[in-house]
Amino acid sequence: MHSNGTLAPEWSVTQWFNTHQPLHLADLRGKVVVLHAFQMLCPGCVVHGLPQTQKIYNTFDTSEVMVIGLHTVFEHHEVMTPQALEAFIHEYRYTFPIGVDQPDEQLELPLTMRAYSMRGTPSLIVIDHKGFIRKHSFGRDDDMQIGADIAALISEAKAASSAEPSTVEGRDIGDGDCDQEKCKV
Amino acid sequence: MHSNGTLAPEWSVTQWFNTHQPLHLADLRGKVVVLHAFQMLCPGCVVHGLPQTQKIYNTFDTSEVMVIGLHTVFEHHEVMTPQALEAFIHEYRYTFPIGVDQPDEQLELPLTMRAYSMRGTPSLIVIDHKGFIRKHSFGRDDDMQIGADIAALISEAKAASSAEPSTVEGRDIGDGDCDQEKCKV
Amino acid sequence: MHSNGTLAPEWSVTQWFNTHQPLHLADLRGKVVVLHAFQMLCPGCVVHGLPQTQKIYNTFDTSEVMVIGLHTVFEHHEVMTPQALEAFIHEYRYTFPIGVDQPDEQLELPLTMRAYSMRGTPSLIVIDHKGFIRKHSFGRDDDMQIGADIAALISEAKAASSAEPSTVEGRDIGDGDCDQEKCKV
Amino acid sequence: MHSNGTLAPEWSVTQWFNTHQPLHLADLRGKVVVLHAFQMLCPGCVVHGLPQTQKIYNTFDTSEVMVIGLHTVFEHHEVMTPQALEAFIHEYRYTFPIGVDQPDEQLELPLTMRAYSMRGTPSLIVIDHKGFIRKHSFGRDDDMQIGADIAALISEAKAASSAEPSTVEGRDIGDGDCDQEKCKV
Repeated sequence: MHSNGTLAPEWSVTQWFNTHQPLHLADLRGKVVVLHAFQMLCPGCVVHGLPQTQKIYNTFDTSEVMVIGLHTVFEHHEVMTPQALEAFIHEYRYTFPIGVDQPDEQLELPLTMRAYSMRGTPSLIVIDHKGFIRKHSFGRDDDMQIGADIAALISEAKAASSAEPSTVEGRDIGDGDCDQEKCKV
Repeated sequence: MHSNGTLAPEWSVTQWFNTHQPLHLADLRGKVVVLHAFQMLCPGCVVHGLPQTQKIYNTFDTSEVMVIGLHTVFEHHEVMTPQALEAFIHEYRYTFPIGVDQPDEQLELPLTMRAYSMRGTPSLIVIDHKGFIRKHSFGRDDDMQIGADIAALISEAKAASSAEPSTVEGRDIGDGDCDQEKCKV
Repeated sequence: MHSNGTLAPEWSVTQWFNTHQPLHLADLRGKVVVLHAFQMLCPGCVVHGLPQTQKIYNTFDTSEVMVIGLHTVFEHHEVMTPQALEAFIHEYRYTFPIGVDQPDEQLELPLTMRAYSMRGTPSLIVIDHKGFIRKHSFGRDDDMQIGADIAALISEAKAASSAEPSTVEGRDIGDGDCDQEKCKV
Repeated sequence: MHSNGTLAPEWSVTQWFNTHQPLHLADLRGKVVVLHAFQMLCPGCVVHGLPQTQKIYNTFDTSEVMVIGLHTVFEHHEVMTPQALEAFIHEYRYTFPIGVDQPDEQLELPLTMRAYSMRGTPSLIVIDHKGFIRKHSFGRDDDMQIGADIAALISEAKAASSAEPSTVEGRDIGDGDCDQEKCKV
């Protein structure tokens, strides 16, 4: 896990499943965010990545960790449609929120996948409470290591939460930190 | 495994993958036939049934055992299309012949699935060299037991083959056996 | 699996578990015999070989297949004693007959292990109904292949049994076959 | 994981493997301690508990987490000797420190096992940097949860370490905390 990271860009999602309202990264500051990018016809996602993501969702408290699946279709677009995804989610009984990465009108790679420079699927991205990417992996991750990484970020979030005065504005911006809106220098 | 069985009906397939020409059960007399019915969005098929079927295909010689996958879509018809199946087969790298079970125009169950009275997917049907159904299971089968069952039927086929005079007609019909064309009484 | 094999030598066992009386290979003609050589402190045996052997024992009928475990201690002799083996068998709940391979007074390799030229543990040896070694493997075997190999030998045994006149003596000796007592020429 | 716990008693070990010098719990304050109690002939330990413990040892840094195996023999004492344990450790290639729990002269349960009120093997006990038992489980634990629990305790240790003045004595005793020698009230 990186001790520092780059600021995570907002995702671009055209449709959500398993959530009543759209989710925005900007609204999740203060929580650890686990973003799992997959394709429904990607064997590594189905056999390993998605079950692991469901396990993360079951293991951690949603008040501390927000788990988001992202359907980043970059091949077989004509059959990995949102309608097909809906049937897939239903059959596999996934319960965590899943968004459809916004297709690019001209390129095969969807927008969020490009914004995060993902190599492919499955990709696992872990974002800390301040919105920084602390883990960015492609392929197969180990359960114990993932559990430890997420827990360490929860502890960071708790420490920050208990340390900060209740009146501060721009609470998530530390010295030298920079988000897309403003920089603190 | 049944010591006797009912005669296996011919399958109704609208499209084939992984084979240059359509396959007909009637042409496979003399071989053991393993018919694996699945749906591409059925978790039990993807995690267990299809890998096991691929293993059967890799373990036995195609001169003795013909392995056939059958896409028996009985739900989510609009997304489990032949085009989606083609992408699925490509991504999972299945190499055995796979046919699309013919849809019924009025019912959800496709024709072959009904003809074989399958309960659902995954279903595994093993047909002996004379065309009789000797094993018909729904759900999860054990590798060792499947291997043993198939090998026993190969031995039956070999024994029948070596026992019969080379000039005989209607070679696969034993006393009291009956196929759809004719009965030997 | 070998289409032919060498005649299996008799094992030398000093103590048996899970059987009321000593077992002799010579008495098992007509059955398929699966001989699994292991050591109780061999990880490959404990994690893979012994569970597979128990599965063979559970899958096949003892009237057709005799499964025998053989504790072939060739290292750590002072701690892999028959008394330790007894506790091991009890804790792991193995139910098939297990014999202790007879130690050599001067060499580390026990007698049966040497007689069968085993490379180490786990070793799996499959002997046909006539007493010939048809499979001899070291390391990890696949469940489906093992199931198929054993079933093929059961079929051979059945075919031989049904073919032979009921009054014949020396029933298992075919043309050109040879056991340690006598040769048929 | 318990937010509080009872103070972990010192273990009683008669012999160590995989460490040049005896290890004492009292010397490990400041680190998270993972204590895995097992028996070499306990199937659950061999198949699940010990591999998981080795994985904990490989995943975390020994400067933060001390992993200790404890051979808590409470049955088959005559064959689960230290000499047998040594061969077992060698064959399974465990690399973390392992101690032999001191036998009681009159009872079957060894001393540390009783001091920790363990129900059996495998037992997993996680002790925080102040010496308190925070997790005490019997049977099978999940990798992801264990990873998360240990990481949370590492974070606690780091927070405590950075918060405390460098000159303080009795550094691990917080307000209201109590060890067996003295209480801070």
